[in-house]
Amino acid sequence: VSYRRTGSRLVPTSVGPGGLVPVMRPVLKRFGGRWIVSAFSDDDRAIARTDPRGHEYDGFTLQLLDVPADVHRGHYETVSVEYLGRLFHYLFELPYLPVFDDRFSAAWGNFQRVNELYAHAVARAPGDAPVLVEDYHLMLVAQRIRTLIPSFDRPLVYFHHVPWCAPDYFGLLPRPIRSEILSALLSYDAVGFHSHRWARAFLDCCERFVAGARVEDGSVEWNGRSIRVLSSPAPIDPAEIKRAATSHEAHQWFDRLTRLVAGRTAIVRVDRADLWKNVLRGFEAFGLLLRRRPELASHVCFIAVLSPTRTWLTEYRRYLRACERAAARINQTFDGTRRGHAPPVEILVAADGLRPDHHRALSAMRVADALLVNPLYDGLNLVAKEAVIVSERAPVLVLSENAGSYDELADGALCINPFDVTETAHALERALEMDAEERSRRADALRRIILARTPESWIDDQLGAVGAGTSSRTTPKKLSR
Amino acid sequence: VSYRRTGSRLVPTSVGPGGLVPVMRPVLKRFGGRWIVSAFSDDDRAIARTDPRGHEYDGFTLQLLDVPADVHRGHYETVSVEYLGRLFHYLFELPYLPVFDDRFSAAWGNFQRVNELYAHAVARAPGDAPVLVEDYHLMLVAQRIRTLIPSFDRPLVYFHHVPWCAPDYFGLLPRPIRSEILSALLSYDAVGFHSHRWARAFLDCCERFVAGARVEDGSVEWNGRSIRVLSSPAPIDPAEIKRAATSHEAHQWFDRLTRLVAGRTAIVRVDRADLWKNVLRGFEAFGLLLRRRPELASHVCFIAVLSPTRTWLTEYRRYLRACERAAARINQTFDGTRRGHAPPVEILVAADGLRPDHHRALSAMRVADALLVNPLYDGLNLVAKEAVIVSERAPVLVLSENAGSYDELADGALCINPFDVTETAHALERALEMDAEERSRRADALRRIILARTPESWIDDQLGAVGAGTSSRTTPKKLSR
Repeated sequence: VSYRRTGSRLVPTSVGPGGLVPVMRPVLKRFGGRWIVSAFSDDDRAIARTDPRGHEYDGFTLQLLDVPADVHRGHYETVSVEYLGRLFHYLFELPYLPVFDDRFSAAWGNFQRVNELYAHAVARAPGDAPVLVEDYHLMLVAQRIRTLIPSFDRPLVYFHHVPWCAPDYFGLLPRPIRSEILSALLSYDAVGFHSHRWARAFLDCCERFVAGARVEDGSVEWNGRSIRVLSSPAPIDPAEIKRAATSHEAHQWFDRLTRLVAGRTAIVRVDRADLWKNVLRGFEAFGLLLRRRPELASHVCFIAVLSPTRTWLTEYRRYLRACERAAARINQTFDGTRRGHAPPVEILVAADGLRPDHHRALSAMRVADALLVNPLYDGLNLVAKEAVIVSERAPVLVLSENAGSYDELADGALCINPFDVTETAHALERALEMDAEERSRRADALRRIILARTPESWIDDQLGAVGAGTSSRTTPKKLSR
Repeated sequence: VSYRRTGSRLVPTSVGPGGLVPVMRPVLKRFGGRWIVSAFSDDDRAIARTDPRGHEYDGFTLQLLDVPADVHRGHYETVSVEYLGRLFHYLFELPYLPVFDDRFSAAWGNFQRVNELYAHAVARAPGDAPVLVEDYHLMLVAQRIRTLIPSFDRPLVYFHHVPWCAPDYFGLLPRPIRSEILSALLSYDAVGFHSHRWARAFLDCCERFVAGARVEDGSVEWNGRSIRVLSSPAPIDPAEIKRAATSHEAHQWFDRLTRLVAGRTAIVRVDRADLWKNVLRGFEAFGLLLRRRPELASHVCFIAVLSPTRTWLTEYRRYLRACERAAARINQTFDGTRRGHAPPVEILVAADGLRPDHHRALSAMRVADALLVNPLYDGLNLVAKEAVIVSERAPVLVLSENAGSYDELADGALCINPFDVTETAHALERALEMDAEERSRRADALRRIILARTPESWIDDQLGAVGAGTSSRTTPKKLSR
């Protein structure tokens, strides 16, 4: 959540698809609670200063934290995005990056500082509800809380929303930073991941780098404490997502997308244009398919809804341009204008973080016959779940085996190695030509899996891990303080 | 070994530091045997055709294999260098590479073809000596031999000379290729690595990707067979290396390097300029040290002896230029000409694969006060061992924890995380300022470790693993056919 000044008023805006917000909103709406988030902009900081205790927002208390701009930059742009985000997604070009030097050390000081600000805010917050800390930007919070208040006894749960990397790659970090991160995570009562695979990689890192840690499947014993390590994929809120997809605001997008598809079979992808979403190989696979089967070009289209992100980084701008060039090459090769059909690839790029993007994305999901979700590595990929629920056409899901949601969805999806363009092209071909019976059987299977998990199950898993299940200690809305 | 035409004669040449040759030569000189190698150049192919059974060379039989140029390119340049070499060293910039498409599939066909050519050559070779297959270019040989001759009963040992990567990274390969490689390696009787860490990573890959494999520490049970997995770091031949370092040919290089050092304390690095040797961060660390301690610039120098390699690849040329620019920046900042001392950094770049390079490299090792061996990841790094033996100054070894030789040498070295420039700068500072007592204690410890292993121990480890020890079945020179 962020605020923007409109005239003299500050109005809340919300970010596009992907990221933490669509995971947390249904949970907060269901259970209430206090959400403490960094002020990102000067306008946010103004709110944080005038309203340090937070205010009601959409059924929960929203508390903005006044993080100075330069501290925020070191914490978020440098450490979180440039270093840790790339680390957990295996994104470094190792001959050149990462470089751990004075610049990193200074930014790491800011990373620690922001984690301390959160620790102070949590320590001062009223009530005795469990504390859920979301994502790697805040890995150090529990340790700082326990330093501030050694007797702190509210359950402290950390959830990691991106992949965790293998020890060989985690070992890129300087030795003191490795220890600091791992011992900080072992200061929580439980550490959660969307997939068993990331939980396992975390346990492997504890085994390799934490002296004296005893690692079991599902827990770490260390320094006389037992830390639960769980895997619990985040759910979606189907009612809410369907409502948004068929809302008045989405309607004009749906009409436009229906006209764009114009009766063709539609492959759809929806992504925040992060470096790990693999948009480029998706186009390469589609191009390979059309070269092998040029007759498909007239009755198949590929719609990519992309929200640019982190565009202050050269790599992100370079990557988006490479994707656009790949799409343009396909459209040049299979130019259909003279044969009466539209270009096969359409990229719909939304302005960074703008809300209408959400409706465009949902509308694209509605018209999808096939969904391509082919990330290099992805913590979960909620879009895979959203799209299956929103599509009106029994969509075939082509899913990367490196998405966290692979754990849950593999049985109903066509699974691919995202680096294997040949295999991806074959999977797209199979999706386009699948008969109606198999399509609906698979789509039904996926829907059953997706609907089986609710915001309650996700919270239950986490609180259950620390002996504070929603059914006993906390019931919906009682988490609220 | 390669041949070059000099007038009407073909004369053997030898490659520079690094790679397989310095590992294998002392072994072959000691034990004899038949070395089967691909013809690389047209001149090599001429030899292969006129002399298909091989000829005596330096105490062993050298047999060149006539691999057609285009098949060689697919096998070596595309699959081995562009794909597998980068894979095992974690070198891909994942948003863009690797791409597995038709080009890869065609090259993979050539990779299989070359492995089949070797299998045929081994199957036709006389005698019953064990077969030692060296490095990842030839991973498929045993499987092809067993297809040709199901009753083949000579021991088949594979040795992997580069790192092995974690399952998450090995999983970049297309699914059929993963299986093909791992099941091919499990067709050997034993699989060897220079370091326990790479052996462990290989076992982890078998566990993740080979259905039905039972993985123990040191072996894999699969398909009713037991495959030994061993870690056995390659030795050097100290007598040979000392002889070469003090040879007549090396002498003029030694004089030149002594003049270049001009009484300063010398940090030396010697590398084939591969993308994983981390030359760039070495310079960055030295630059950081000089910025913190500018007074060092007048009495310390950093000599980098680099052999360019794989210069047909843009990435390699780009990397070498980046290294040269980093060195130039340091020399500009700490320009000593007006203060009467030479520039602090000297890069000595040798022509690709030229023999004199070896003497220059050895001479640089002789004048070293400190050795920087900081690869991102490296199968072993024989230079670390050579330099300690050759140096005349009780050198301090600054060693990457990701070099295979870390297993053996950690106790005597100053160990660093190669990505941590700050830590590397500190280690260089400590090396430069270490007192004489600690220097010689550490250098003595390193020498003892290095001299404890001989070419015999390395071969013994491998043959012992398949129940064919040198002391019983094979004694030195009896391996010869």
